[in-house]
Amino acid sequence: MEHLECLFCQKTFPLNLFDPFCPDCHEPLLYHYPPAKRASHQKKEWPLERYLEFLPQLELKPELSLGEGDTPLVRLERIRKKYALPFLFIKNEALNPTSSFKDRGSVVAVHKALSQGIERIGTVSTGNMANSTAAYGARAGLKTFVLVKEDISRAKLLATAVHNPALISVAGDYGDLFRESFAVGQKHSIYFMNSVDPMRIEGYKIPGFEMFAQLDFHIPDYIFVPVSSGGHLIGLMRAFLDLKTQGLSEDLPVFVGVQARGCSPIARAFAQEATRVERIAKPDTIAHAISNPDPPGGNIVLRLLREFDGMVITVNDQEILMAQKILAELEGLFCMPASSTTLAGLLKLSKKKAFQPNDQIVLMITGSGVKALDTLESSQISVRHTGLFDLEKQIKSLV
Amino acid sequence: MEHLECLFCQKTFPLNLFDPFCPDCHEPLLYHYPPAKRASHQKKEWPLERYLEFLPQLELKPELSLGEGDTPLVRLERIRKKYALPFLFIKNEALNPTSSFKDRGSVVAVHKALSQGIERIGTVSTGNMANSTAAYGARAGLKTFVLVKEDISRAKLLATAVHNPALISVAGDYGDLFRESFAVGQKHSIYFMNSVDPMRIEGYKIPGFEMFAQLDFHIPDYIFVPVSSGGHLIGLMRAFLDLKTQGLSEDLPVFVGVQARGCSPIARAFAQEATRVERIAKPDTIAHAISNPDPPGGNIVLRLLREFDGMVITVNDQEILMAQKILAELEGLFCMPASSTTLAGLLKLSKKKAFQPNDQIVLMITGSGVKALDTLESSQISVRHTGLFDLEKQIKSLV
Repeated sequence: MEHLECLFCQKTFPLNLFDPFCPDCHEPLLYHYPPAKRASHQKKEWPLERYLEFLPQLELKPELSLGEGDTPLVRLERIRKKYALPFLFIKNEALNPTSSFKDRGSVVAVHKALSQGIERIGTVSTGNMANSTAAYGARAGLKTFVLVKEDISRAKLLATAVHNPALISVAGDYGDLFRESFAVGQKHSIYFMNSVDPMRIEGYKIPGFEMFAQLDFHIPDYIFVPVSSGGHLIGLMRAFLDLKTQGLSEDLPVFVGVQARGCSPIARAFAQEATRVERIAKPDTIAHAISNPDPPGGNIVLRLLREFDGMVITVNDQEILMAQKILAELEGLFCMPASSTTLAGLLKLSKKKAFQPNDQIVLMITGSGVKALDTLESSQISVRHTGLFDLEKQIKSLV
Repeated sequence: MEHLECLFCQKTFPLNLFDPFCPDCHEPLLYHYPPAKRASHQKKEWPLERYLEFLPQLELKPELSLGEGDTPLVRLERIRKKYALPFLFIKNEALNPTSSFKDRGSVVAVHKALSQGIERIGTVSTGNMANSTAAYGARAGLKTFVLVKEDISRAKLLATAVHNPALISVAGDYGDLFRESFAVGQKHSIYFMNSVDPMRIEGYKIPGFEMFAQLDFHIPDYIFVPVSSGGHLIGLMRAFLDLKTQGLSEDLPVFVGVQARGCSPIARAFAQEATRVERIAKPDTIAHAISNPDPPGGNIVLRLLREFDGMVITVNDQEILMAQKILAELEGLFCMPASSTTLAGLLKLSKKKAFQPNDQIVLMITGSGVKALDTLESSQISVRHTGLFDLEKQIKSLV
């Protein structure tokens, strides 16, 4: 029998994927691991297999995998030099099958769905998670319900619809929709694997384990993570907590959550030393993928960051777009604005805080810029037009 | 001193990246390897390092890499069962840093540019190669010229422009532009790493070596490859020829090139048993990424396919879109139409040809569907709209 636990009430409950919230305090429940010695198996090809002992009980089925994981950890030397930063890396989660980190969670959750005999899954998403859940649901042959906001971008809608889920655009408040999905899910046996689903969060540990291996089994000093619902950051922190508990590392990285200024409920609560996150009235940022005004994992994030000396900072849209441009022009990396918040946050923090020259900093790149081209539409694109006869002249003027 | 060779005239020439064509017959030159015992180094992390002995002389610089390669080989069990096919895999090259196989070539070519002291690079492309070259050029800090056709899609233009190359849209014939680029390149010391660039082609060998390792050091029986300029197919064939030459495999896979019916100059020449490819007057296919009416590597492809018992087949736009839909709905894979030609080709061929039940077939997935959303725009997308209050009723009607 597997259990979920409430960090706040310190109680455990039998695993129920349809309603993974504490009946007392209503906070999201996390997966509960009985104490055990756990080890990774570095020779295994598949990340899920390699880190199986750190995951919920799973009967692995390769036919559910789309090849997620083993994403590259890439050095950013040109940015490091230009901005006099310590050793800098990106963990490029955009190179997952549906171009975002969400696949890490989807593959675990879909495995669990099958092993529990669940035939219907669903998600509530602003885009990337819709896309990922639709793809993994199709791969598994599960009936998949995808609930999106009315203002979802055409690109994200198309990339989701192509997998032929039951796709429903829902008018109304996003937080209410999140809650309503669980009510409907319980009634119709649909496992809504939403942003803070406990299986998803366990899946988000794997990039943490991978970067530890990629850094020759050392932890980085800092990890910058875009924060929306909180699920991704919670998962990554749990990975490094696991490593410490197992005696594989002595310390923890410093976790720096980054929110967009125009939607920063967690950062605000953190700055005010509050223990609870209050919802934001009107989110306003171009970083749509992290524009969650009412983050369900917010209180857990606050608690973990305080307990383990992390922080949450904010960056504004101008800083986000500038960081996106720097990554694309200096390093050849095109990520979505939600992801470039990490570099924006680092550049901002580096003005106030002295990093050590040997510090290793990892920026989590959560999704591809190709899926958020709409944010570029308004920017000035420099294209010259010419004919074949004038080509040489045109090029001569540019060399 | 490194050399290039002409397959037709059987002569070698000193390596000149600015003009890699045979002075006698004008065919593209390929990299010439002196006979040597070569081995892979499976314990190396980076594919370029692992297969270094099978590549041109390169001084490897990790700061030029964006984490390309090690793409997954994914089983397609649901399609196999539904269509009664042998063992079926995709090699998903869309999971490279700029979402296409082009990165395999770009990283090798950019390495060579730097080691030769070249400061300016360029490409002529309909989309994916523009994107890839702009990204790798930015990463390397090289002045990068990207020449595109006037009708390039907005998405591909934006994804390229974001890296801030000298981006020029050129009116006129694409084949003429291809040739003109080398003339301009020689004049202004710009290394145009176009579709059949000999360094690119060597880079395209690596996914071949990888799949051999992924299949426990066995060759697949068939490899289906979308064919445009011919560079990708030539590279893959060279990989398996290398393995055979080195005694690592006894045989070769059967290579099946696939072209879109509306632009199939190589398939037409192959069917007519011609030795030369004639240009197509008016290409007309939704598979834009392989719509090359005048493929520079066409004659080499014809020669290699004949010599090694391969074939080239065609599929029409309807078959291409249907295969794209099957991959997305049954397996959770969203690829561009140019890539789904491979499944379309297999489905078509399987009606005429009896595969063995134990045959292993690999479909090369060359690029992501997210970069070709325009081809989906016209298709019927099934989205239901509802409010929160009607959500349960809506879902009930769908379960």
